[in-house]
Amino acid sequence: MNFCTSCGNPVALKIPEGDDRERYVCTHCGMIHYTNPRVIVGCVPEYEGKVLLCKRAIEPRKNFWTLPAGFMENGETTPEGAARETWEEAKARVSNLQLYRLFDVPYISQVYMFYRCSVDNGEFGVGPESLETDLYAEDQIPWGEIAFPVVKETLREYFRDVEAGHFPVRVSSVQRDSWRK
Amino acid sequence: MNFCTSCGNPVALKIPEGDDRERYVCTHCGMIHYTNPRVIVGCVPEYEGKVLLCKRAIEPRKNFWTLPAGFMENGETTPEGAARETWEEAKARVSNLQLYRLFDVPYISQVYMFYRCSVDNGEFGVGPESLETDLYAEDQIPWGEIAFPVVKETLREYFRDVEAGHFPVRVSSVQRDSWRK
Repeated sequence: MNFCTSCGNPVALKIPEGDDRERYVCTHCGMIHYTNPRVIVGCVPEYEGKVLLCKRAIEPRKNFWTLPAGFMENGETTPEGAARETWEEAKARVSNLQLYRLFDVPYISQVYMFYRCSVDNGEFGVGPESLETDLYAEDQIPWGEIAFPVVKETLREYFRDVEAGHFPVRVSSVQRDSWRK
Repeated sequence: MNFCTSCGNPVALKIPEGDDRERYVCTHCGMIHYTNPRVIVGCVPEYEGKVLLCKRAIEPRKNFWTLPAGFMENGETTPEGAARETWEEAKARVSNLQLYRLFDVPYISQVYMFYRCSVDNGEFGVGPESLETDLYAEDQIPWGEIAFPVVKETLREYFRDVEAGHFPVRVSSVQRDSWRK
């Protein structure tokens, strides 16, 4: 960040009075520019025991499979955002959203939230950010081609929880090194 | 937002190619400035059946009681942020953080997340954003002087859950009108 969003003059990193960490503060008007973690919302969309996955048409991890998810937008709730992303990426309408999995990814200042849900009428399609989409049973999932560790972990847990008939909300954090595993 | 954070030239609201909503885009360098919801993290800090509350020293809702909570910062996890806020506002160290309550507040683009936790050794103090702090049993809580509806709802649910011995993670959204109730 170089310039103030309000007056266009240069900003400098300094600790504002009463604060305890550096912020970008305008050298002219004094405006403090806070930056905060971003929320990624997504779904584990289920239909008749299978989960809806999307093959990514865009980087990062193009050609790898993922759960529908993306940045939460202003003015929406977390389940609304998760349902919106599922519509955009897999053209599926979903119902009965239940919070299921939260991952903190502090080294990139992100929070992932996945909701379990049902795919209405089992209908889906292919959105512009996907190359293909499909419903997968556990033993059909392309486990070696999953885009992100948080997606693989969520899917693993999900099928275990289906077996147990119990879906606790889990929270954990992802460290930088685990990303490449 | 008036100016580009990268080059300092004016921005204009437009829908970037491939997007479906307006963003602030630089008229000179083309940089797209995304804004996203912010996360507020807090605790329901418990000790011997009582909950630690803070009387706010700052606006909004100065002189009203709240659970320790504040904006999540870059580089931390949600439980780390909740614990940090509890230290800053109530000088209490907390353990065993368990996700407990999530509120979406879409009309101000915020997500509240509260963690249940234990106050280490029952020790607490008064941070700079608090006028006083104390541990309250359910029948001692100043119910008429609670700062925010999400705090009152969380406390009501918490004491019901203590009685039931069961702490489900709840998710709901707050509408604009409910704020003033």
